[in-house]
Amino acid sequence: MDEYISMSYGNGGKKTSKLIEEIIIPAFDNAELSNLGDGALLETSGSLAFSTDSFVIYPYIFPGGDIGKLSVCGTVNDLLMCGSKPKYLSLSLILEEGFKIEDFKKIINSISKTAKSAGVKIVTGDTKVVDKGHGHGIYINTSGIGERINGIQLNTSRIKPGDKVIVSGSVGNHGISVLCARENLLESSINSDCAVLNDVVNIILKYKDAVKVLRDPTRGGIATTLNEFTEKMNYSIELYEDNIPVDENVKTACDLLGLDPLYSANEGKVLAIVSSEASSEIIKDLKQIELSKNAAIIGEVVDYASSKVFIKGPLGGTRILDKLNFDNLPRIC
Amino acid sequence: MDEYISMSYGNGGKKTSKLIEEIIIPAFDNAELSNLGDGALLETSGSLAFSTDSFVIYPYIFPGGDIGKLSVCGTVNDLLMCGSKPKYLSLSLILEEGFKIEDFKKIINSISKTAKSAGVKIVTGDTKVVDKGHGHGIYINTSGIGERINGIQLNTSRIKPGDKVIVSGSVGNHGISVLCARENLLESSINSDCAVLNDVVNIILKYKDAVKVLRDPTRGGIATTLNEFTEKMNYSIELYEDNIPVDENVKTACDLLGLDPLYSANEGKVLAIVSSEASSEIIKDLKQIELSKNAAIIGEVVDYASSKVFIKGPLGGTRILDKLNFDNLPRIC
Repeated sequence: MDEYISMSYGNGGKKTSKLIEEIIIPAFDNAELSNLGDGALLETSGSLAFSTDSFVIYPYIFPGGDIGKLSVCGTVNDLLMCGSKPKYLSLSLILEEGFKIEDFKKIINSISKTAKSAGVKIVTGDTKVVDKGHGHGIYINTSGIGERINGIQLNTSRIKPGDKVIVSGSVGNHGISVLCARENLLESSINSDCAVLNDVVNIILKYKDAVKVLRDPTRGGIATTLNEFTEKMNYSIELYEDNIPVDENVKTACDLLGLDPLYSANEGKVLAIVSSEASSEIIKDLKQIELSKNAAIIGEVVDYASSKVFIKGPLGGTRILDKLNFDNLPRIC
Repeated sequence: MDEYISMSYGNGGKKTSKLIEEIIIPAFDNAELSNLGDGALLETSGSLAFSTDSFVIYPYIFPGGDIGKLSVCGTVNDLLMCGSKPKYLSLSLILEEGFKIEDFKKIINSISKTAKSAGVKIVTGDTKVVDKGHGHGIYINTSGIGERINGIQLNTSRIKPGDKVIVSGSVGNHGISVLCARENLLESSINSDCAVLNDVVNIILKYKDAVKVLRDPTRGGIATTLNEFTEKMNYSIELYEDNIPVDENVKTACDLLGLDPLYSANEGKVLAIVSSEASSEIIKDLKQIELSKNAAIIGEVVDYASSKVFIKGPLGGTRILDKLNFDNLPRIC
């Protein structure tokens, strides 16, 4: 094997085969993939969720993960948010000429490990190579199929005033971590929260009907995701600023850099709207596992027809929390 | 709307929403997509084909198509080759800062038109923006789900000596077209054969059991695809050089440029192995429609255990036709 990716690894010929057979297939060994046809043949329950995401994060290796781990977490989490059990992923790679094959192996290994921990199989894929100066090392697309879980109806139309907004842990870590890694700030001491959320979502979905909607607040942070909720509701959301969990090091970094953790991306958190009755029980259950030990009720649905997100500060003042508008952190996923 | 894509179109906030709501959603209007959740909810037969492809072609507009049309044809055709009816596509975009929004609209329009003609719905998507110098205008990933057709068993293990190799039309057009367009050769007079193959595959699959395997010979051309067949067989394939349809202008271009049409990509052709008995009937049926009017029997499966592809020239000499090895045409899909 060469030391660097050259254009001929993308021509569909011998080198492409070598890359696939020596690095990719051994990492993901399964019957569906090994067939190596134009696609994978799958037997499913039929009632599905289908999601896609391209990852262009830079740097592609960052504290707490790399683009490989992220590309599995991202699509697996999207499938979970649809109320489905993630089953199958596709993996499509755009490599830049000159990319180190050693880094490629690390990333493939990371994809393999994360996929196993999420219980999904990589069943079909594609590899392209672009010439130097038309990429940035590696871009990854994963698309995924999940089987919908019976009896789960996630829909903003089921949201009612009084419902609670819960988050499964501290917010803003991923975006701040990537920014610090990219700009060599604060000794890159903040880890991304990048994680597969199967266990967290399984806990929440035990409360079936009480769960109205789930979303992972990635780009644009929880502020943007909550606005996406209210855009489809005839109600508003009021957040209690004091209750929103933010890690100390993220808080410090945000203060220093003039950033707001509510607009910073998360890659291992669930934002849910649940019935008021079930909310405390759900938080109690979530706190039992490490991944959601900082889970909290951070707000509630209120009967203002303006369909906005309000945030109530510790001193009682209330302001509007809008969608992300300016570009503080490009290419964080 | 601005004239060019800026980084803020990729931050997941207001500009991303604007792009999605003003250009993308209107082009693909359907209930599954309009939900705009983390993924689409689908009801399917359960027995599926799943395929993915990233498209990095340059130039992204070429004679006979553009990257949008290509990105639908590519995945739709892969699903057809699996013996499935293509149903749903995901669409994931990587845009380069500075990309013209006018070109973006053209490409989205082209995706919409091609998807309609193929009978598939775009149900979920993603948009990322990379900074100038880290992309090349636009890269597209499509992943697709098809429902497998009952009673169709496509598998190299069913191939027997005597089976015929058929191709649905002239070979090599796409690769040569893109090369000429990129390098401004021959006044770019050669059109890509980029097309969805639903009608062609439907004709072939009427012959159910007689059809052993289907593949669209894209990167690496028919030479590479036939080698992928023989790698999984205990037999070899012998081609009759004289019978392989090549358009006159492609032949001329290949002669001038020192290229071989057998290694040049196709984006609207099927390569099939079928039983000898059915082969002439299949060709007769294929010739009835414009898209496969040049269909031909181009070779047969022979009982040599070497698992190679041989080609018999017009003067009777036979040589080995290997997989694509060197990089004559990068980034043609």
